[in-house]
Amino acid sequence: MKKFLNDPADVVRDALTGFIAAHADLVRLHRNPAFVQRAGGTPAGKVAIVSGGGSGHEPLHIGFVGPGMLDAACPGAVFTSPTPDQILAAMDASDAGAGVLLLVKNYDGDVMNFEMAAELATVPCRSVVIDDDAAGGRGVAGTVVVEKLVGAFAETGADLAACEALAVRANRATRSLGVALSSCTVPEVGEPSFAIGVGEMEEGVGIHGERGRRRAAMKPAREITRDMVGTLLASLPQGDDEVLLMTNGFASTPLIELYLMHGLAQEHLERAGLRVTRSLVGNVCTSLDMAGCSFTVTRLDDELRRLWDAPVRTPALAR
Amino acid sequence: MKKFLNDPADVVRDALTGFIAAHADLVRLHRNPAFVQRAGGTPAGKVAIVSGGGSGHEPLHIGFVGPGMLDAACPGAVFTSPTPDQILAAMDASDAGAGVLLLVKNYDGDVMNFEMAAELATVPCRSVVIDDDAAGGRGVAGTVVVEKLVGAFAETGADLAACEALAVRANRATRSLGVALSSCTVPEVGEPSFAIGVGEMEEGVGIHGERGRRRAAMKPAREITRDMVGTLLASLPQGDDEVLLMTNGFASTPLIELYLMHGLAQEHLERAGLRVTRSLVGNVCTSLDMAGCSFTVTRLDDELRRLWDAPVRTPALAR
Repeated sequence: MKKFLNDPADVVRDALTGFIAAHADLVRLHRNPAFVQRAGGTPAGKVAIVSGGGSGHEPLHIGFVGPGMLDAACPGAVFTSPTPDQILAAMDASDAGAGVLLLVKNYDGDVMNFEMAAELATVPCRSVVIDDDAAGGRGVAGTVVVEKLVGAFAETGADLAACEALAVRANRATRSLGVALSSCTVPEVGEPSFAIGVGEMEEGVGIHGERGRRRAAMKPAREITRDMVGTLLASLPQGDDEVLLMTNGFASTPLIELYLMHGLAQEHLERAGLRVTRSLVGNVCTSLDMAGCSFTVTRLDDELRRLWDAPVRTPALAR
Repeated sequence: MKKFLNDPADVVRDALTGFIAAHADLVRLHRNPAFVQRAGGTPAGKVAIVSGGGSGHEPLHIGFVGPGMLDAACPGAVFTSPTPDQILAAMDASDAGAGVLLLVKNYDGDVMNFEMAAELATVPCRSVVIDDDAAGGRGVAGTVVVEKLVGAFAETGADLAACEALAVRANRATRSLGVALSSCTVPEVGEPSFAIGVGEMEEGVGIHGERGRRRAAMKPAREITRDMVGTLLASLPQGDDEVLLMTNGFASTPLIELYLMHGLAQEHLERAGLRVTRSLVGNVCTSLDMAGCSFTVTRLDDELRRLWDAPVRTPALAR
């Protein structure tokens, strides 16, 4: 394992120190229990949007805290759910009188700990589980899309029930699929989670170094994207022909390749009769040092398009 | 070599297709000769800021085209200077009556081709060579800082001579230093440019897979940053104690490690009596699939800080 590290046990703490040093204008960090909160707190009367999950997916979630997106995010240990006390503290700090909506990626640990926090909470709260992965219903990169759409919706003054309904709708309209060219190495483990041969790739991969749905021979990008878009389209619910396409890097795939993949995926989607009117390309939901990428497709309508276009000001996404 | 590719010879063309598909709202792409231009063109009477260089450093330069930064960028083949006809075409398309400032990274091929274009140009132009690398005077990640500062300055209506002077000043105030944990693989070559052992790293590395200044044993992040900040401080000109710190990833180093490195570098700078008041962390000037990072330190004064904070709207940087 070759990583920029001090003690592997301190990686999350040390990274949070750098994160808050870089973004003190946008966010503040609470330690013990750890959560990142929007600078200035949730505006009075706005529903607070709170998320979180294991670390190692940066910028998810802490990089998406700020006006137009999350009010707080709880970083767990690497690939480990945040604890209920982290989530409770973030909820207490974020509630501004209109309650808290929890956005939870569909993993046992996350679902359990966020549920426990919701049961113990003294503030009004609802919870939506995100399961955008077309290869198994896990919560993956589509989480960023849901966080953006719901974050923008909450800024309009929508109430807690309406925010919950929007999150459910955004999640249903969103499907993702990933492919890995390498595994990833958890710092405290020191060895790759699984091995991929020189001429192989892993299709339908998750974001925690877990094995994917299928090992396949390495193929030209044109064929990889054709197959991935095919699987995505089969799992996407019926709806308008207008879509958002997000091409997400897992960390070690260069932007030049992500753009190449994005162009090919857009071509395949348009050949299937869809119109890609909104795009995002970059490392938004990573898997430590994994090489690979995922596509996320969200069916848009006038409301979702407006919410996607709404202003946002966070460490990882601003416009 | 395991990359998302079709024919390695087409990687730049294919990536530009995806780039323009993703960012048609911000930029437009001219093919034959290839350059990326700010959507809507240079505002009338504004000095046009034009840059470019070999591909493989994305988002540099094409990702920094837009209001508040570059008016056009010319992408060369991978690690190869753009040709004079690309640069000339970009200059012609970008001049809005106030002339063109060329920002050129200090590499023989770039310097030669931009010089040739400047000699053949029919529009008024000046040229500034960026040589921020503390390990050899190459133009590296500090280019992004210079492009941001000069881009913001041009938006204020400054004339060509003033923009040139600001670029010279910004470049002098800026020093960078990189360290690599892996080499990179040029798609058309298919093999890493050099080998780094499991327990080794390469100090003072460039952004083209060239060897660095020194091979060293892998060390804890705290020691790497201490040594790098020491070298940077020794090469930084005297001046105000306020600085911008940019922690740049070369592509394959995860954001969690970049933040960790950023926090440590800031600590070392502050111990040396400097105040880090502005930060940027991310993959802004990459080297294909290299693992590693660089620090860039720019001495700020009131004018440079204001220019850094000025609005910018490009594919890779927006606020």
